[in-house]
Amino acid sequence: MIRPHPAVEALPPATPFIGPERLMRETGRSELVRLGANESAFGPSPFAIAAMERELPRLSWYGDPDSLDLRDALASKHACDAGSILVVAGIDDVMGLIVRAYVGAGGLALAARGTYPTFAYHVHGYGGTLETVDYRDDGFVDVDAMIAAARRLDPHLVYLANPDNPSGTLLPASEVERLIDALPARTLLLLDEAYADFVSDDRLLARPLDDRVIRTRTFSKAYGFAGARIGYALLTRAHHDVLQKVRLQYGVNRNAQIGALAALADTAFVTGVIAQTQAGREEYVALATSLGLRTLPSHTNFVCIDCGTGERATRVMHELLQRGVWIRKPGARPLDRFVRVSVGTAPMRAAFTDAFRAVLAVVPA
Amino acid sequence: MIRPHPAVEALPPATPFIGPERLMRETGRSELVRLGANESAFGPSPFAIAAMERELPRLSWYGDPDSLDLRDALASKHACDAGSILVVAGIDDVMGLIVRAYVGAGGLALAARGTYPTFAYHVHGYGGTLETVDYRDDGFVDVDAMIAAARRLDPHLVYLANPDNPSGTLLPASEVERLIDALPARTLLLLDEAYADFVSDDRLLARPLDDRVIRTRTFSKAYGFAGARIGYALLTRAHHDVLQKVRLQYGVNRNAQIGALAALADTAFVTGVIAQTQAGREEYVALATSLGLRTLPSHTNFVCIDCGTGERATRVMHELLQRGVWIRKPGARPLDRFVRVSVGTAPMRAAFTDAFRAVLAVVPA
Repeated sequence: MIRPHPAVEALPPATPFIGPERLMRETGRSELVRLGANESAFGPSPFAIAAMERELPRLSWYGDPDSLDLRDALASKHACDAGSILVVAGIDDVMGLIVRAYVGAGGLALAARGTYPTFAYHVHGYGGTLETVDYRDDGFVDVDAMIAAARRLDPHLVYLANPDNPSGTLLPASEVERLIDALPARTLLLLDEAYADFVSDDRLLARPLDDRVIRTRTFSKAYGFAGARIGYALLTRAHHDVLQKVRLQYGVNRNAQIGALAALADTAFVTGVIAQTQAGREEYVALATSLGLRTLPSHTNFVCIDCGTGERATRVMHELLQRGVWIRKPGARPLDRFVRVSVGTAPMRAAFTDAFRAVLAVVPA
Repeated sequence: MIRPHPAVEALPPATPFIGPERLMRETGRSELVRLGANESAFGPSPFAIAAMERELPRLSWYGDPDSLDLRDALASKHACDAGSILVVAGIDDVMGLIVRAYVGAGGLALAARGTYPTFAYHVHGYGGTLETVDYRDDGFVDVDAMIAAARRLDPHLVYLANPDNPSGTLLPASEVERLIDALPARTLLLLDEAYADFVSDDRLLARPLDDRVIRTRTFSKAYGFAGARIGYALLTRAHHDVLQKVRLQYGVNRNAQIGALAALADTAFVTGVIAQTQAGREEYVALATSLGLRTLPSHTNFVCIDCGTGERATRVMHELLQRGVWIRKPGARPLDRFVRVSVGTAPMRAAFTDAFRAVLAVVPA
């Protein structure tokens, strides 16, 4: 009998996020208003698209395993050395590497309960244990509880998404600083900054890189590259050398490298996306307010709207899908009473607004 | 002190293949004749390029995590169920998943010594032990030795690339069949068919899928998609369910999915690539013969040329690089006396021919 390694055999069946393509097949729809995965509704920069178009005939070449040109550009952007940057196939990719390298079999990790689920997926997948602390009821990560748990548990790795997903809330840099300073000596912080592009630099951690933190960034959100699978970690040489030992050396696709490099140069485009995103968030907040619903303060490209109970939020999500609008919602308390809707273009937001009003009228509070 | 998991800390520093981009920086060249990584010199199908171009504005969407459309097309091509196909970000990706799931910490794998090095990288990286058997001196995988070793060692996983890289040789389907039938009951065969597109179907394993074998395929070679990072495994539902538990659910990029789907439809293009590749191989064989050098019989898009000794082959490779021609060579005996050159376009082959003649004149036998 051929059987997998006991550690993998013991894993439960995967229950990944269902993709909109499968939902379309299941509902018989030829399209959905895609507001479920915090994809950018504003696409990649036209300048980046043109760069990728030009290079498609050379897609038969492997991407540069060292991402030399892109790392140079990122080092310039972040005023650091290229050795402090590891380019990866999206944050999910490097998150897996970090968990594999720093948690691993028998290791211990700590995160907010219900934060970005792929972190838990990796911790379990690599044989680690995940301990959690609850979000505060206002949707913020509970830093005091996290510090207390870290001191009690002495974990190998603490995960903090800031801005957070799925809540959208942003901890002040001083709170992140306080968390780092309070962590046990052996504890690494994985600071997931997937949504940092939507936050002004003066509100982000300003601390120079040291071995206590690995920060992760992506081109998937403000840059509109989710389908390209490209991101990077900001990290010390020591961590770089460790992840280099386990990463897929030729894992980043060439088209993404070329597009990301061009996108970095088109700062005006990203600035415009950020402004449009803020306007879209404000529209959602106004909509919710007009319906008597509260929202969480978001520093991302999505907004969480309070539906009162988890049951109602789930029904709202399903009813929206019946009307062709695809959103998602947090699964764990206390955030499970919210629905999470990504900022779309103006027509997408209008479609959401109409459907949301109609759904609320039929889903009792 | 923050330190990685002992299993990762114990790994040696990574020594990946050096990419041509780094070689260009180091040698101060603005271009190289790329004949080192068995990339297709004929690019992707223009039909696939057009499909990818059209979809670039939607690169802000994640790829379908289930690759539904592509799996349907592949199921049709292979006359199997879509559940027998797992789409991945290249064979390196799924090879890592298979090693993680079926070898893992304390597990045992078996392969030909010097075959595709990423397999050894994964086995060591996931805490397994790799046992090897030598190639036969004629460049073929030694099936008798592999069967004997498998029976003696009872490994969890046996790796066979067929056609093989770096030798290019092809075992008859009957020999692969003999190997499978002789493996111990708990042993899985990873049959890496990265180069199978260059072989006519009647020379490939015809056996229906069962739990004893996972076959891997790629769009990187004949389809010219190396930079796109997309491939797939042919496997039973049981293996599919296992790998589903550990794979990156959103790891395949959307552009690659779209391009691969379009490329499958352009069968005339791939047929042309295969014919041009065969002509290029014959040209290399004629060149070697004219210089009194032997070649290995290749069923791939590269040819191994015998330079007599490992030292000479290494010097030939370095001298070619000095002349702007980038190739690679096998590292382990008995194949280390060969240089391995990918089939290029006619101008690339002409550049190689000129440089190779010049180098042989200055590198003594």
